Amino acid sequence: AFDQRGGGASAAARAGAIGVLVRSLTHALDTLPHTGSLRYKADIPRIPAAAISTVDASALSQASKTVTSPLTVRMRMNCVDLGTAEQGNVIGEWRGSERPDEIITLGGHLDSWDIGEGAHDDGSGVVHTLEALRALKAVGYTPRRTMRFVLFINEENGNRGGKKYAQVAAEEHLAGLRHVAAMESDAGGFVPRGVRMDALDSGVEMVRSWASTLEPYNLHYFGRGGSGVDIGPLKELEPRPLLMGLVPDGQRYFDLHHSSQDVWENVHKRELELGAATCASMLLMLDRNLPAD
Amino acid sequence: AFDQRGGGASAAARAGAIGVLVRSLTHALDTLPHTGSLRYKADIPRIPAAAISTVDASALSQASKTVTSPLTVRMRMNCVDLGTAEQGNVIGEWRGSERPDEIITLGGHLDSWDIGEGAHDDGSGVVHTLEALRALKAVGYTPRRTMRFVLFINEENGNRGGKKYAQVAAEEHLAGLRHVAAMESDAGGFVPRGVRMDALDSGVEMVRSWASTLEPYNLHYFGRGGSGVDIGPLKELEPRPLLMGLVPDGQRYFDLHHSSQDVWENVHKRELELGAATCASMLLMLDRNLPAD
Repeated sequence: AFDQRGGGASAAARAGAIGVLVRSLTHALDTLPHTGSLRYKADIPRIPAAAISTVDASALSQASKTVTSPLTVRMRMNCVDLGTAEQGNVIGEWRGSERPDEIITLGGHLDSWDIGEGAHDDGSGVVHTLEALRALKAVGYTPRRTMRFVLFINEENGNRGGKKYAQVAAEEHLAGLRHVAAMESDAGGFVPRGVRMDALDSGVEMVRSWASTLEPYNLHYFGRGGSGVDIGPLKELEPRPLLMGLVPDGQRYFDLHHSSQDVWENVHKRELELGAATCASMLLMLDRNLPAD
Repeated sequence: AFDQRGGGASAAARAGAIGVLVRSLTHALDTLPHTGSLRYKADIPRIPAAAISTVDASALSQASKTVTSPLTVRMRMNCVDLGTAEQGNVIGEWRGSERPDEIITLGGHLDSWDIGEGAHDDGSGVVHTLEALRALKAVGYTPRRTMRFVLFINEENGNRGGKKYAQVAAEEHLAGLRHVAAMESDAGGFVPRGVRMDALDSGVEMVRSWASTLEPYNLHYFGRGGSGVDIGPLKELEPRPLLMGLVPDGQRYFDLHHSSQDVWENVHKRELELGAATCASMLLMLDRNLPAD
């Protein structure tokens, strides 16, 4: 469904469509539209596009196969492109005591789709970021490296916050600072399972060597894969930072994702806290164990 | 809180109390009473006892410390002991093709507290039991050993179903049948984490050797501990069966446990299915890998 939401409008327009309704990207059979980004291709007419619920999509599909008279769908939409406005990433820096020129970033994104509150996507990542800082301070931790706590802007609609952060990071690299690791929480506030890593083999092996330390906290997943949209562009830096994304349990995420149900009533307080504790633990383990070079 | 719910009434009566209100056994700060079993001790007056919500308990505790006039609580209760009635375990047997005299049991319990629907406790265990059988049949599995799918009665209030099953099992052992393993699902319908084992070292090591096979399904917990109330009495058999209990994620269980919120609206379909798949997988692995002797 992801390619249909993102590219369906242009693909349909190329085939002559004058509008497109996309089956929502969700595991749920529900009556809620789940929104998300769409990219119009250049030189193809920009036709109206809307997400409809999985239940409605199935009903429409069924109707298209069974009705004998022509099937007409009327689309009445009130969305407009208001253009761009300047906004910023929000960055808190905690200076390192031993290696202040080496930077470890933790972040989530501030923006969300207007259809809900963005509680899981990505209010939870924002809470994880702030709470990890609070927790590390509460236990009296003194960071060896500089830690940056970043609330990114515009993840959902262009990733301009993440791209800008990486651009500044590249300038910092030239000036002698070095981004050694970054972690993102942008997969919901559900009970944590572990982390997904986008890193060199040496980094992946280091994190996996912590498994027995993390096992009592029910953290067991240390796979490879994308870390997060916001920190992803940091991958281009040389030397390459160790990137990781928090992996919460994923069974319920797409029930709520980009819908009117992504509200705080659907975030479990204890699960949210465990995600924050996981982020704090990973920051601490990275700070203590990243190789000095 | 468990000892207060179970033994608080008699402990308070011994100290002269004429009634007792127990803070509910739950992690949640809510306004719901969470019920459960209570055991009156012999030769101590049986005083009225009720669970009150954690919010109400905190308010009452606060009031007891701050009000200057005597604090009076009126208890009006309509519960009665209706005596016992005969009920039975419900047992389905799938006869083994190679070792029909060796029995592997999977079960949950049919009874629940009347305050809710018992959807997680233990409707989910009942669904897991039935669905594991359906799934194994659907994939065309032929069991080597005899599998029994058991819906136990009276788990919440005396465990007479579990005790009776173990009593019959002991008679079966004398007659040449042998209960080699049993699994119970009585910890909710949440996303599965693994199993808890009450078994000899050899059995625990065997199950742990399956970890890499089960890892892709996000099953990672293979600890030791209680297996389940219903199958627990099977532990007394000689030779001792390998007992295990399904371990779903536990963060939300006591939010609902024994309360009016333990209803099917609060069970996630996909998580319930994953629990059933875990039970089916464990049955299959036990059937294939238990040592022949």
